[in-house]
Amino acid sequence: MTIRYPNGNAYQTPATPSGPKFPSSYTNYGKRGMTLEEELNQSNTYYETRGMAVVHKKPTPIQIVKVDYPKRSAAVIKEAYFSTASTTDYNGVYRGHYLDFDAKETKNKSSFPLKNFHQHQIDHMRACTAQGGICFAIIKFVNRHETYLYRAEDLFTFWDQQIQGGRKSVPYADIAAKGILLPAQLQLPVPYLKAVDQLL
Amino acid sequence: MTIRYPNGNAYQTPATPSGPKFPSSYTNYGKRGMTLEEELNQSNTYYETRGMAVVHKKPTPIQIVKVDYPKRSAAVIKEAYFSTASTTDYNGVYRGHYLDFDAKETKNKSSFPLKNFHQHQIDHMRACTAQGGICFAIIKFVNRHETYLYRAEDLFTFWDQQIQGGRKSVPYADIAAKGILLPAQLQLPVPYLKAVDQLL
Repeated sequence: MTIRYPNGNAYQTPATPSGPKFPSSYTNYGKRGMTLEEELNQSNTYYETRGMAVVHKKPTPIQIVKVDYPKRSAAVIKEAYFSTASTTDYNGVYRGHYLDFDAKETKNKSSFPLKNFHQHQIDHMRACTAQGGICFAIIKFVNRHETYLYRAEDLFTFWDQQIQGGRKSVPYADIAAKGILLPAQLQLPVPYLKAVDQLL
Repeated sequence: MTIRYPNGNAYQTPATPSGPKFPSSYTNYGKRGMTLEEELNQSNTYYETRGMAVVHKKPTPIQIVKVDYPKRSAAVIKEAYFSTASTTDYNGVYRGHYLDFDAKETKNKSSFPLKNFHQHQIDHMRACTAQGGICFAIIKFVNRHETYLYRAEDLFTFWDQQIQGGRKSVPYADIAAKGILLPAQLQLPVPYLKAVDQLL
């Protein structure tokens, strides 16, 4: 049934914040397909501009082979290759604490495959943990629209079991049980500091 | 006069660690022209392998414009540019403390030119200091063969004075007086953790 105004015009449903055509940069994250990296960059900016923490993603390590220096212009890298990071991607400082973490997303619904991590990243997190740093993984189950903070110690347990022939993934149920769910907030897609407070 | 052994053979002066032809990788740093970055990488490796701290240099940030994906080969970056870092170059964790610093060398003997720093690096160190991080600069006077740890707070003083029309450099005398001299040790070109202990 068409609903009409008193002047006879048909009533049209207004675009809502959750509607597909609403231009808000906040509510359409899912639809825009913001990556976990973009969500974390936005969250880190949110925290830093409010003086709550200073956390940055490290630049991607690149092996440069050839550089041109054209006259009167900036140097141009002409040949380079992506190299493997020797650490995790994110670190920084929060109320005197050293934070160190990596962020991974998976389309898998039932488990998180351990092949997303490399041995040197695990080694790095162990070394930072031994120095008193706060280490964890931020794991996003893309198809569940759920992001968790998962303690490095819990990750180490599965990692070590894998090396001894155990399963090659962490069950979703374990992450949901031991991890801390991070539901998106306004302007803050991954509110991980609240979860970090629970680790201190 | 030639000194001889009882068997008549001439005594030859043995090569000493400080002699110019000695092949030790330690004593010839100056002659090999090791950069401050190389010295710090070696120092960081020294500290990490002994479980004393975990500190890394961040990769150089690069703006990638064009990447080729040849069949059966690794991706090749064909066009890229160096971009400006938004943070300092080094950070990490030492006995629960967050460390953050930049390393600069100068051939100037009488002062350290402030143009070696950018506003965003100063801003970053201020933000980290506010979060309880330990921030400093490592400054090497190449022609004096002297390297100092200089507190971020002292650097901020000169930086702020410069912005208000003050001098554009920090006098060597100030760095020598307020900074902490870092004389190279065996396998440890820049022993900065001992100096950090004085800041805690």
